[in-house]
Amino acid sequence: MSKTKQRRPQAETPKGFRDYFGAEVTARKEMLDRIARVYHRYGFDPLETSAVETVEALGKFLPDVDRPNEGVFAWQEDEKDWVALRYDLTAPLARVAAQYRNDLPSPYRRYAMGPVWRNEKPGPGRFRQFYQCDADTVGASTVAADAEICAMLADVFEDLGLGGDFIVRINNRKVLNGVMEAAGVLDPTDPERFAEERGIVLRAIDKLDRLGEAGVRALIGEGRKDDSGDFTKGAGLPDASADIVLAFTAARRDSGAETCAELRRLVGDSVTGAEGVAELEEMAALLAAQGYGADRVVIDPSVVRGLGYYTGPVYEAELTFEILDEKGRKRQFGSVAGGGRYDDLVKRFTGQAVPATGVSIGVDRLLAALTAKGRVVADTAGPVVVTVMDRTRMADYQAMVRDLRRAGIRAEVYLGNPKNFGNQLKYADKRNSPVAIIQGSDEAARGVVQIKDLVLGAKIAESATLEEWKERPAQVEVPLSELVATVKAMLEAS
Amino acid sequence: MSKTKQRRPQAETPKGFRDYFGAEVTARKEMLDRIARVYHRYGFDPLETSAVETVEALGKFLPDVDRPNEGVFAWQEDEKDWVALRYDLTAPLARVAAQYRNDLPSPYRRYAMGPVWRNEKPGPGRFRQFYQCDADTVGASTVAADAEICAMLADVFEDLGLGGDFIVRINNRKVLNGVMEAAGVLDPTDPERFAEERGIVLRAIDKLDRLGEAGVRALIGEGRKDDSGDFTKGAGLPDASADIVLAFTAARRDSGAETCAELRRLVGDSVTGAEGVAELEEMAALLAAQGYGADRVVIDPSVVRGLGYYTGPVYEAELTFEILDEKGRKRQFGSVAGGGRYDDLVKRFTGQAVPATGVSIGVDRLLAALTAKGRVVADTAGPVVVTVMDRTRMADYQAMVRDLRRAGIRAEVYLGNPKNFGNQLKYADKRNSPVAIIQGSDEAARGVVQIKDLVLGAKIAESATLEEWKERPAQVEVPLSELVATVKAMLEAS
Repeated sequence: MSKTKQRRPQAETPKGFRDYFGAEVTARKEMLDRIARVYHRYGFDPLETSAVETVEALGKFLPDVDRPNEGVFAWQEDEKDWVALRYDLTAPLARVAAQYRNDLPSPYRRYAMGPVWRNEKPGPGRFRQFYQCDADTVGASTVAADAEICAMLADVFEDLGLGGDFIVRINNRKVLNGVMEAAGVLDPTDPERFAEERGIVLRAIDKLDRLGEAGVRALIGEGRKDDSGDFTKGAGLPDASADIVLAFTAARRDSGAETCAELRRLVGDSVTGAEGVAELEEMAALLAAQGYGADRVVIDPSVVRGLGYYTGPVYEAELTFEILDEKGRKRQFGSVAGGGRYDDLVKRFTGQAVPATGVSIGVDRLLAALTAKGRVVADTAGPVVVTVMDRTRMADYQAMVRDLRRAGIRAEVYLGNPKNFGNQLKYADKRNSPVAIIQGSDEAARGVVQIKDLVLGAKIAESATLEEWKERPAQVEVPLSELVATVKAMLEAS
Repeated sequence: MSKTKQRRPQAETPKGFRDYFGAEVTARKEMLDRIARVYHRYGFDPLETSAVETVEALGKFLPDVDRPNEGVFAWQEDEKDWVALRYDLTAPLARVAAQYRNDLPSPYRRYAMGPVWRNEKPGPGRFRQFYQCDADTVGASTVAADAEICAMLADVFEDLGLGGDFIVRINNRKVLNGVMEAAGVLDPTDPERFAEERGIVLRAIDKLDRLGEAGVRALIGEGRKDDSGDFTKGAGLPDASADIVLAFTAARRDSGAETCAELRRLVGDSVTGAEGVAELEEMAALLAAQGYGADRVVIDPSVVRGLGYYTGPVYEAELTFEILDEKGRKRQFGSVAGGGRYDDLVKRFTGQAVPATGVSIGVDRLLAALTAKGRVVADTAGPVVVTVMDRTRMADYQAMVRDLRRAGIRAEVYLGNPKNFGNQLKYADKRNSPVAIIQGSDEAARGVVQIKDLVLGAKIAESATLEEWKERPAQVEVPLSELVATVKAMLEAS
């Protein structure tokens, strides 16, 4: 064994990852539990796949990004097969749907909640491991499945206390394809033609928020020079084509019927486009029949996120209340969930098209929204702390916490070095303890305990007048036999 | 874009990993939720670290195995730092305890639940990703912390419905060290001496179950030839030394006091050994004072698992009921949790010793035990299925499930191809649905629905006589307005 002195390892969370403590963990868990109950009520079953998938099974299908495996954490097994951490919950579902296709019910409704990993440059608020919470229906070709997921999303937000603060917006890839046809950049008899131009148009639409109409128009046309002077090549389409594409993104009218009429006009003779409009109409009708009005679900062609990835309906949930951004300006909270129909993912494995549709909720963003709205359910109450005045009487203190716990009260004995009593109270403070128990040898001899109401104590220290203090003392002495009842009453009062 | 035809990817779970479906997920979640409630009541806070740690932070400390990084899944970041998937929940805790040492309360009680990964050869029932469920106290040097964890473990098993079927067994590494001194293989004035021999003795003790007394004696002595003829080098100690070591593992007497007396005799003059015995006595006294008798917690020097890893008290929880093994023979269910005191893990990072003790529950084994005892709480009830008789009336069917869900009933519309009605009933069967709803155009015209009690139907098909069938028909027709109430009554009766 070598005796050379080794450098001590760094105690650091790996770059781009983070740790979650206490209430951060319970708040997320509470939220996910609530969401799971809604999913369950809709007939969805949980599925938990492992974190690791073969790179082959994962493929390179990221919903938002057009990039190969570089976005995943991958390693080679025994110098043979490559495996990787899953980057979303959809790719594993596609694998499962193909692998167990003879055993699963069809349609297969499943939900999944868990971490996913992205091998990307971390940034502020951007982590390389984060939670997703998905619900998908595999094997249902009817858009009733898409409508169901939109209704379920609305129920999730209502259930989380966000009623009136959200909107689910629906669009359809087929309508966009119809618009592409009308704009002369998609030939239904030769789908491969204009592929490059379509790619440019799709990416341009995706940047509408950031670049504005003029920027998108430039990209659809001759190209765009950005502020730094860099030039991005355009699709080279005439201005009339850009007109049609931009009219599509701005086609939302006051009612779903009017919006659909406008879309029908824009797609012209396109069969695919007409199909897309009909799908939107069918979804709108189903949702209206279930009572989901325009205050909760709307047809909105400005939903462009993910249009390049999905094959039919696309939907996005947005929170409409305002928050202050980093610079103190008001802005809408924005998108917290997105999804749509992706009929080609299972086909990769089996060769047979399997219709599928589903949604992914951004867990961290939704939790941030709940926090901003004061709707987070997190247990931040610390335990009752039984202090240690006399080290040799540990068994007595343990008996006290046992009695408290039996009564359902969170409680613990102080297990640090008991010498400095001040440290024990500092500890109770750090734990956010509501109550501290004190029993020195004098109290023990008399069969009593001191019970310190730390919540009240903090209030008194902060603001109360002497009169109030007298009325309800922050520390009482009671017989040991009244310990549990007294603590219980204190907890209820605080 | 290349047009060469690509091989289709295999739809396969990576080797050594597995997928969990439906009730498998909810049963584990229910169990972990119950355990978390006990941990919480004891004042433990949740901690969730990321799956990824730096290899440097992980070190090579596996509790059961004496091996380097080969047991972990690791990869290199940007051709620089190595990172790896965590192989347990203790190493990340040690990192956290060091990293946040100025912010965390001290003592820091935390629990953690989640998957860990081992890069090992998979075998039957051995997976490379599995759940652990840990509770640890960092910063408490008193064995009251160890006793608390043993009491908490007992409470966990009681709470899970395993009262009377478990035993928590306690041993102490310091007693073993005292025994090592008495056996002449540990010199307290020169701890490095005899390191190799001690390693052999430790490993031999660890194999007591498998090799029996004679095998261990051989390894402590001149060495052991196994059945295949392979020779394992021994520690070369005299037979008297083996006597002492083996007497230690067999030192359990009828009462804790008698066991401690025997241990005190065995450790002779060893100061460390006497300290270990005193710790056992203190733990026993604390637990007895809280009412944990010998039927739930015992001192048992035959607990040897992990003695090489831990530095003080060691504890193990065993389930004592019998199950049938693969060959149909009765055997005790055995160990489902283990832990102990490891005062050196945080020191790796900071250079300062930080006392720590904790337990890890084997989640899969405990879940298997609960299943064997019929104590699993898993929601296996499928949804009420509203069948589709008339594709154009999807909105009506959706309205039915909406009403059912509002009443808290799990329900869904059949979203597969509705053409073949038999397939819809087969689907309901596969989903384990309790009730199916049928409304064709005839029923719709009359404002009624058919409600099929699938649970009763299955019972009738299996065994009931004609009389019973008449009394409670498995299918009823009711007005649409009575749909929810009728389904509710059916679910309550089944």
